[in-house]
Amino acid sequence: MKLAVTGKGGTGKTTVACLLAHYFKNDGYQVLAVDADPDANLASALGIPSEQAALIIPISQQRQLIEERTGAKLKQFGQLFKLNPTVNDIADNYGISFQGIRLLVMGGIQKGGDGCACPENVLLRSLLSEIILNRDEVVIVDMEAGIEHLGRATARSIDKMLITVEPGSRSISTAKTIIRLSKEIGVNKFGIVGNKIQNRTQEQWIIRQFSPGQILGMISYHENIQEGDLKQQSLMEVLDNELRKEFDKIYYGCRQKNE
Amino acid sequence: MKLAVTGKGGTGKTTVACLLAHYFKNDGYQVLAVDADPDANLASALGIPSEQAALIIPISQQRQLIEERTGAKLKQFGQLFKLNPTVNDIADNYGISFQGIRLLVMGGIQKGGDGCACPENVLLRSLLSEIILNRDEVVIVDMEAGIEHLGRATARSIDKMLITVEPGSRSISTAKTIIRLSKEIGVNKFGIVGNKIQNRTQEQWIIRQFSPGQILGMISYHENIQEGDLKQQSLMEVLDNELRKEFDKIYYGCRQKNE
Repeated sequence: MKLAVTGKGGTGKTTVACLLAHYFKNDGYQVLAVDADPDANLASALGIPSEQAALIIPISQQRQLIEERTGAKLKQFGQLFKLNPTVNDIADNYGISFQGIRLLVMGGIQKGGDGCACPENVLLRSLLSEIILNRDEVVIVDMEAGIEHLGRATARSIDKMLITVEPGSRSISTAKTIIRLSKEIGVNKFGIVGNKIQNRTQEQWIIRQFSPGQILGMISYHENIQEGDLKQQSLMEVLDNELRKEFDKIYYGCRQKNE
Repeated sequence: MKLAVTGKGGTGKTTVACLLAHYFKNDGYQVLAVDADPDANLASALGIPSEQAALIIPISQQRQLIEERTGAKLKQFGQLFKLNPTVNDIADNYGISFQGIRLLVMGGIQKGGDGCACPENVLLRSLLSEIILNRDEVVIVDMEAGIEHLGRATARSIDKMLITVEPGSRSISTAKTIIRLSKEIGVNKFGIVGNKIQNRTQEQWIIRQFSPGQILGMISYHENIQEGDLKQQSLMEVLDNELRKEFDKIYYGCRQKNE
């Protein structure tokens, strides 16, 4: 299964992608997590120590290497992944493994004025469409915030698009735009995850904004997530029983293919 | 003066851009506010009624019109604004006016798979560099979240880059990346605005992350901003004395050119 986590910036995409990766892994799946947000840090959320994270060569840098060595240009980048890559191939060649989770980092803007992230998005789109998954394998993409990736159709071959929202009208409006644009690139399964919920009124307010089948679950506002972030703890370190219970529901909903 | 408001998604760029626009206007400045975030809604934050906001034709759509009519291609877009445009020209030809604030909307991704936002960024970069400002005129750009615009050097001719952060290590890390990349495109003045501050410890923690001269001010966590958002109130409707006092400091710091 190929899952992408999208949403307005700051609504908790990385939190959800990270928890999903751990849940699937603990359930016996082979997990390839892809950090596709040039402004996020899935490695740190996953608990990868900074020394090991420093060894990750982002795809954006590998692209430059490949380009220099082969002279391949943008349009041909897609072909890099054309040989029916598997989760293991990808992890071995382009990523790292940590506690059973494989991580691939797309990489960000390295230098001001160096250009856009279009080439990386071409690469990722190609990777997501070419990768061959077994029944027990899952790809989880922490997408770039906002909606530009939908113009680029980066997530075209995703099976289900999870969308994080918080109790704020702008995150809802982003989610609705994501649903509309995703359908235009052929993605038709969605799961809304409400985050930072402080009371029942906020929860109900979010639920009213979407069709009932689209709601996957809700995550309360957890002070320890924020505090853990300040202390640079991994998400799994701050996972308490309440959050676990909330996320159980999201995870099981997420595993259901036909919705 | 040309100001851009940047930062990680969800940290309050639109809030700060909107307050700045109102403060400058109330102080007698001619204000051109530019909504350059395809995933934001500066018009609604400014309090523009939805019927009037619906009349705004985003630059991205005007670009298509212009392209169809003139056959101009991407590289020539910059020339659209080449004739020493003024704040009034821009507002008259491409934007709308509301309560003395001129607003220009860059526009977003209209259709899934339609492509990236590179052309709009070329246009905006050109506009920002060509526009001629009088002493009493100010341009305030609500930039796209994250850092891709810095690869595109969209804000190359900005005088000061305001960066919103919240008490979270990822927003700080984004801010530091923004400072580094901005210097590479020639922007050297920065103002950090801490937002959603819940206590003195968080405030001090943020202050420690930057050089003292870079801190512009702090905005507490205001429940009425969140509630106002849910009720789709404009920011000025929920502006209370506490927020006003906090923002006074940010505004005066912002007006100082030499920092």
